[in-house]
Amino acid sequence: MSLPVDPTANLASLIRCASVTPAEGGALTALETMLKPLGFNVERPVFAEDGTPDIENLYARLPGNGPHLMFAGHTDVVPVGDEAAWTHPPFAAEIANGEMYGRGAVDMKGGIACFLAAVARHVEKHGRPKGSISLLITGDEEGPAINGTVKLLEWAAAKGEKWDASIVGEPTNPDALGDMIKIGRRGSLSGIVTVNGRQGHAAYPHLADNPARGIVTLLDALMAPAFDKGTGDFQPTNLEVTSIDIGNPATNVIAAKATAAFNIRFNDSWTVESLQAEIHNRLDRAAGRRKLRPGRKEPIDYEIVWRDRPSHVFLTRDDRLIETLSGSVKAVTGRTPGLSTSGGTSDARFIKDYCPVVEFGLVGQTMHMVDERAALADLETLTQIYERFLQDWFG
Amino acid sequence: MSLPVDPTANLASLIRCASVTPAEGGALTALETMLKPLGFNVERPVFAEDGTPDIENLYARLPGNGPHLMFAGHTDVVPVGDEAAWTHPPFAAEIANGEMYGRGAVDMKGGIACFLAAVARHVEKHGRPKGSISLLITGDEEGPAINGTVKLLEWAAAKGEKWDASIVGEPTNPDALGDMIKIGRRGSLSGIVTVNGRQGHAAYPHLADNPARGIVTLLDALMAPAFDKGTGDFQPTNLEVTSIDIGNPATNVIAAKATAAFNIRFNDSWTVESLQAEIHNRLDRAAGRRKLRPGRKEPIDYEIVWRDRPSHVFLTRDDRLIETLSGSVKAVTGRTPGLSTSGGTSDARFIKDYCPVVEFGLVGQTMHMVDERAALADLETLTQIYERFLQDWFG
Ligand SMILES: [Zn+2]
Ligand SMILES: [Zn+2]
Repeated sequence: MSLPVDPTANLASLIRCASVTPAEGGALTALETMLKPLGFNVERPVFAEDGTPDIENLYARLPGNGPHLMFAGHTDVVPVGDEAAWTHPPFAAEIANGEMYGRGAVDMKGGIACFLAAVARHVEKHGRPKGSISLLITGDEEGPAINGTVKLLEWAAAKGEKWDASIVGEPTNPDALGDMIKIGRRGSLSGIVTVNGRQGHAAYPHLADNPARGIVTLLDALMAPAFDKGTGDFQPTNLEVTSIDIGNPATNVIAAKATAAFNIRFNDSWTVESLQAEIHNRLDRAAGRRKLRPGRKEPIDYEIVWRDRPSHVFLTRDDRLIETLSGSVKAVTGRTPGLSTSGGTSDARFIKDYCPVVEFGLVGQTMHMVDERAALADLETLTQIYERFLQDWFG
Repeated sequence: MSLPVDPTANLASLIRCASVTPAEGGALTALETMLKPLGFNVERPVFAEDGTPDIENLYARLPGNGPHLMFAGHTDVVPVGDEAAWTHPPFAAEIANGEMYGRGAVDMKGGIACFLAAVARHVEKHGRPKGSISLLITGDEEGPAINGTVKLLEWAAAKGEKWDASIVGEPTNPDALGDMIKIGRRGSLSGIVTVNGRQGHAAYPHLADNPARGIVTLLDALMAPAFDKGTGDFQPTNLEVTSIDIGNPATNVIAAKATAAFNIRFNDSWTVESLQAEIHNRLDRAAGRRKLRPGRKEPIDYEIVWRDRPSHVFLTRDDRLIETLSGSVKAVTGRTPGLSTSGGTSDARFIKDYCPVVEFGLVGQTMHMVDERAALADLETLTQIYERFLQDWFG
């Protein structure tokens, strides 16, 4: 039985499955077909929840005595956008000028294809590693992320799975392979502030209480001063106001209510709780709950609702994991990757509750875009990096 | 032929005509019927304009040698709102506890009813006055005000009408008859500011340009510092933000555009033009068009659109008109009315281009509300005030 040692062939098989989230599209089955000859035990748990689509997931384990490494990722992809604008069809895996075109090529069927090839090469050369390897693959990373990684981790942990380290194969390199390993993520916290005023006529403002004034006052207090200057590991905490809404079409009317939504990306100076307390503190002070603002008889009447599930900040503190991966990148590419904590969130925010986790994959430039594509040279290089990592980490 | 000397009877006739704007509802015909026996020449011009309802208006003149007084007002009324909530039907003119109920009772069929009774009593006692009296009555004061007072004034002026003074019969008294004469009005100016940003992901704010930050910066500059401290005749100029809108439902997205609407009530420190220049000046400075704001590579990209027709500020400078009316109030009620320039706009803003104008009518408390009503005692008192004014002004 032939082993999946060629990342380009692996990726072509995966791209040809149109697994636009939440559809499985055959992608997990294709993956299962490649895993079986390597000796992986494959399970395909489906998770469901009212009001969300049922999601197929995959957990595969190659048993062994020794440490347990988890590779995590997703086979679902974002929609193709304007299909007519693609130079090559999004699910054809066509190759042109040394690049393979297709939705998911870099985000992140490419990462999975390379890791699979790396394991296959390792097994072919050395037999099974001195430990265990698992693949934890969801079909719900690009969707609402309800029936994906979170439930898959809980499900695996409940049946006794324990991991010593994890690599997430998301595209982490901004420009060239070897640029960047992600060793942590900022947290994310979102809220909606509502100011309740008193409706009235613009000519008689003393009979009304304009919530526009209140919301601007509160937003000023949220936007400045800066929350921090950044830390050794993280860039500064940043708040963006994502919406402000009153929706009053009448020229002469003072509205009754104003709302504003915001999102904060925060570093390890904060926890979700300490940041929420800081927000309450800023708002209470600006609203005049502590000490009335000049010209106001009563504090600004506001309420805040926290929105979505907050993401906790994390930083990987497993030096051996980081150094082994960084060393593999250096050995294969000759470049020393940056250790970054910038950017958005990923499923690593869930995995970090189970074991140390880092992220390293392809170059992200074309992800989510028309003509998403991966350089064949990059696929080979990433495969070699992952293979080197397996060799060094299992040592 | 009996003369309309009883304001209560006059008002009942007018209330029973359901003249909800823009409908004439028989109100102008009822008025014409009362004016004819007094010797008025009555004309009923109808004005029309594409996209607006045709409006019936009334201009009546009692000829005479001497100065020419205009009484101005409207017979149209605002909708009744929740009719079931009225204690007495809105078009029945029922009397209970010394008050007449009905839509328009104080705004402002009551004022017309009293002025009519005052003229009738004057004619009955003294014959025609030593001058001319006109009634300039529109059916479009509560509507878009396109085919009403503005066109009626132009129409009358075009056929040679000239006036020496005008009383507008709007309800000017906040609490009790005799409280307040209006001798001027603040101007009104409205605008919409749009900030154009650059859309992006909340985790990568350096790749975006958040218009929420820009709009808050510009609104801060519009709301403070105060435009002025008020003048001898007017309260301070005041700006109210009436709406702020982004309309972005996504948690993690920085929006492309933000708008804000505002309305300014301004005093005689300003003209429409000087105030617009001040607004441009504040916005340009805040946007960094003069000198870049810290942390910005380019000025905030904004535009402003002026909205609706601005109302110019005015102040009546005819001391004899003011003193005669004020003296009449004092003589009848024993109270010295305040001379006010506060509150919203009225059709006086159009009349002031033709002759000095003041406003005095009933108590405004129930105007535009369910159970609008006028005290019969107030109707009699206002009639006596108007009658005394006619006697003294024509002297
Ligand atoms: Zn991804
Ligand atoms: Zn009115």
